[in-house]
Amino acid sequence: MTTKRILSGMRPTGKLHLGNLHGALKNWVNLQNDDRYECFYFVADWHALTSDYSDTGQILDNVTDMVIDWLSVGLDPEKSTLFVQSRIIEHAELFLLLSMITPLPWLERNPTYKEIKEELSNRDLSTFGFLGYPVLQAADIIIYKAHGVPVGVDQLPHVELTREIARRFNFLYREIFPIPEPLISDVPKLLGIDGRKMSKSYGNSIYISDTGNELNKKILSMFTDPQRQRKSDPGRPELCNVFSFHQLYSDDSSIGEIDVECRRAGIGCIECKKRLAARITEGLQTVHERQEYYRGHIKEVLEIIENGTARASGIARATMAEVREAVKI
Amino acid sequence: MTTKRILSGMRPTGKLHLGNLHGALKNWVNLQNDDRYECFYFVADWHALTSDYSDTGQILDNVTDMVIDWLSVGLDPEKSTLFVQSRIIEHAELFLLLSMITPLPWLERNPTYKEIKEELSNRDLSTFGFLGYPVLQAADIIIYKAHGVPVGVDQLPHVELTREIARRFNFLYREIFPIPEPLISDVPKLLGIDGRKMSKSYGNSIYISDTGNELNKKILSMFTDPQRQRKSDPGRPELCNVFSFHQLYSDDSSIGEIDVECRRAGIGCIECKKRLAARITEGLQTVHERQEYYRGHIKEVLEIIENGTARASGIARATMAEVREAVKI
Ligand code: SF4
Ligand code: SF4
Repeated sequence: MTTKRILSGMRPTGKLHLGNLHGALKNWVNLQNDDRYECFYFVADWHALTSDYSDTGQILDNVTDMVIDWLSVGLDPEKSTLFVQSRIIEHAELFLLLSMITPLPWLERNPTYKEIKEELSNRDLSTFGFLGYPVLQAADIIIYKAHGVPVGVDQLPHVELTREIARRFNFLYREIFPIPEPLISDVPKLLGIDGRKMSKSYGNSIYISDTGNELNKKILSMFTDPQRQRKSDPGRPELCNVFSFHQLYSDDSSIGEIDVECRRAGIGCIECKKRLAARITEGLQTVHERQEYYRGHIKEVLEIIENGTARASGIARATMAEVREAVKI
Repeated sequence: MTTKRILSGMRPTGKLHLGNLHGALKNWVNLQNDDRYECFYFVADWHALTSDYSDTGQILDNVTDMVIDWLSVGLDPEKSTLFVQSRIIEHAELFLLLSMITPLPWLERNPTYKEIKEELSNRDLSTFGFLGYPVLQAADIIIYKAHGVPVGVDQLPHVELTREIARRFNFLYREIFPIPEPLISDVPKLLGIDGRKMSKSYGNSIYISDTGNELNKKILSMFTDPQRQRKSDPGRPELCNVFSFHQLYSDDSSIGEIDVECRRAGIGCIECKKRLAARITEGLQTVHERQEYYRGHIKEVLEIIENGTARASGIARATMAEVREAVKI
């Protein structure tokens, strides 16, 4: 059995929250621990420039912080290749070459392009690079001849674009790139403490690094079933964000108990939240220990990044040698 | 007095014609021989992909052929740095970074974009890379911190875009790039043998390498003053393409004589053209000798390219180190 190469990246927009953990990282760790796959995960720092080009002061620190979070949640540099996009200049070369063969309409009709543009309308996003970020994404993926790309359902159009661009290159020049498959994972629906999508920019996130009072305070302030105003009102766990977290952090019997007691007003939300805070604290204990370790061993983290980058770089260079030969340039 | 750095490039679209020679190369040679300037000239092979991405078979050969033509018309590798764009991957990295700060409307309103798109409507040019080629051009120029860019009047909008992009980078990050000045040269108006713009794709070009019968045949078939149907009709040299060439290749007294004799039907077009063919043959003799030499010494040509590329590469790397520090990535 040959292993399949998996590739995924994350923008270094700051410390990671539980949405990132359960939305992507848990899945990355699962793939890493599955013998069928060989995993490459990268810090997409050039992608951070598509929306934050005028305020880049944080990017460098964020890169290290993010890799610490990755290591803390269980990514293992012995198993996964962890690297930084901008240190592998070949991504930019392939981006340039793919630019030449990517029809403009493919990018203009990209639904995520329109969506993000509206979402972040306060920033001046109408740049050439922002329009082209699916091209950079395609370069990131196919330069490693990846077979699989773990994504959420909302990112499917991007993978489809990557597939189209790879097919077009293969058709115009030579069959160099495997057409990568999207690996869709079932992502639990976790919201921020205010009931909106968990996002750093909304200030509603529970961070992987949150502990003690900070964590308790956030959990106690979480929105619950909006119909449950008083403790004597029965609640609907299936509509409660606190319950979604319990399903990830509590054991089955506790989950069952809360499900029953909430519906008959047998447990109050404060009690329910206190229990959750205790479970998350327990659940993240190993993560926090590792965070503490790596924060005290930054040199080790930098070495991990360097080794991963060297490894990825070798593959990217080999691919580009083939690409240049195929394009005859 | 500090020297100013000059930068210009040319697409490797095939062997060069007299339009290229008098439109750009003569000027390049003049700049090279002017102590005030330090000249960098590059083969823009990545730019060739913006319009020829699906038929790249010729690009590699064309690169060498073009550099042979450059050397033959008098570019001197001891004075000018001659190099190949695609061998300096840092151009692609800067292209990527400039993409992030270049507003889309700047590119969409570029008059040359619309024009070329119409001119070459038979090719599928509506690609992301084609829209972005002024961004690549900006990267090509400013990565060498060029002060001057020799251009024809029609390319002024491109230099203006390069200047805007350089200013924007300096404003957003740090004052790294000089704002390059366009150096407009007076270009004689030379047309192809059929009276249209001289262009490889029209098949109407007199090539720098044309000699003997080939050259004579082309010159004898040149369009002249359309009102001069018979030898007994007086002609108007100022409207005759043959006369434009005489002004470049004949001495003043011959030019004066033709000017007078043509107007009073004292000289026939065939005689006038025969004289021109003789003058061009003389005028290009040194060029042809050098062409023959370099075609027999390809290794020397490749070494010249290699040395120039190494020299340019050192500068590009130094600039990118500054750029990465400024962008904090
Ligand atoms: S008791 Fe728990 S599950 Fe029920 S509404 Fe309150 S917080 Fe939600
Ligand atoms: S005589 Fe010479 S200049 Fe006059 S029309 Fe003929 S070719 Fe032209």
